[in-house]
Amino acid sequence: MKTLQSCLAVTARYLATLPTFAKLTEDDRKLLASESYLRSYDKGECLFQMDEPASHLVCLVRGSVRVYRVLPDGKEKVIHLVRAPALIAEAPTFLGGAYPSSAACTTDCLVVAIPRKALLGAATRLPELPWRMMAELFSRLRELTRSLEAHSQQSGVVRVASFLIGLGHGKSAVDLPAAKKDVANYLGLRAESFSRALSALQKTGAIEVTDRQILIVDRDQLEQVLVE
Amino acid sequence: MKTLQSCLAVTARYLATLPTFAKLTEDDRKLLASESYLRSYDKGECLFQMDEPASHLVCLVRGSVRVYRVLPDGKEKVIHLVRAPALIAEAPTFLGGAYPSSAACTTDCLVVAIPRKALLGAATRLPELPWRMMAELFSRLRELTRSLEAHSQQSGVVRVASFLIGLGHGKSAVDLPAAKKDVANYLGLRAESFSRALSALQKTGAIEVTDRQILIVDRDQLEQVLVE
Repeated sequence: MKTLQSCLAVTARYLATLPTFAKLTEDDRKLLASESYLRSYDKGECLFQMDEPASHLVCLVRGSVRVYRVLPDGKEKVIHLVRAPALIAEAPTFLGGAYPSSAACTTDCLVVAIPRKALLGAATRLPELPWRMMAELFSRLRELTRSLEAHSQQSGVVRVASFLIGLGHGKSAVDLPAAKKDVANYLGLRAESFSRALSALQKTGAIEVTDRQILIVDRDQLEQVLVE
Repeated sequence: MKTLQSCLAVTARYLATLPTFAKLTEDDRKLLASESYLRSYDKGECLFQMDEPASHLVCLVRGSVRVYRVLPDGKEKVIHLVRAPALIAEAPTFLGGAYPSSAACTTDCLVVAIPRKALLGAATRLPELPWRMMAELFSRLRELTRSLEAHSQQSGVVRVASFLIGLGHGKSAVDLPAAKKDVANYLGLRAESFSRALSALQKTGAIEVTDRQILIVDRDQLEQVLVE
């Protein structure tokens, strides 16, 4: 991890890429930026560890992050795969307490780290901030609900198809936000089941699989899988 | 569903049982109560349906509720089993939009229904309210995270033991908050696997199972299951 020297305007511009801060005035963003740190992390580096005091809100402005928990049996469960721009750990930082999970970079990352004190100060100055945070939390809840549904009932092929459609946002080439084993873990699949599902989808002509990129060749075909 | 005629003080007292409203002044609670409805529901009645506009925050002050989603294949997935006192659907009511799931009473219930407009008014008067709601959402996120972990890795026996310990809060007799099939669904188990897990736990001497009540005979034994 490196803390970068940068002018306020640059950090403020990064903050503007996050929906929660996009609607603040430039002055409010600069004030927040003046109390925050711009940091770069290498792929594989840890952002924070489960059970550490939640000292910073992590604003992920470039790269992808794997949020996971270590279970009592020592295995990991990937809870979220986060892609920039996104907030990470806003609730524990806001509310006080410990990080409920660990976070590690799955690519090189750029982060604006906002200390808890600065965040609380901003929330006092800007009463709409807690509302925006709540919207973030709510969308996180919906993501977890969908994951839970997928874990309880859907086949591997349906989980993978639905994940790829969600990643794509209409694009035809999608980069996996993490290594295949982490994506498999996130989807609640064994690595082999994940590979089998990719192969099955490739056979239908819906996708083409290269190393870490997946080409969506026929989106209609991919969506068809969800309703079959 | 019946809307009950009650004096403000009674509705306000019910609101005081909810952590989110417990720290308001009596006057603030009475004002909120004056804009809300005290309602009783019979077991099996629906509180709201998925995709309906989120018009009311449901404050469950007596009884238990099953929050579920209907999946594309028509099956239900139980997302939460909620016991009074608890808030239901605070985020969509706060933020606007539709209920992301349906809710039905698994016992007779008593509810204070707060209309969206009254909730927004209260949040403007009481800036700590959005923070409290955020804490509620965060604890919901943690519950879902634990569910997801359980769905992805734990055995049926461990899921059931952990659920019973959570229900018990130190008590020796626990009432299931919903029918066995709903509890099984919530835990991501088939009804038969749920019954098998109960039998297995009964054989260890940890619990005794009657109709809808479960007696925790040996809590240490039950907790032992989690670490084996």
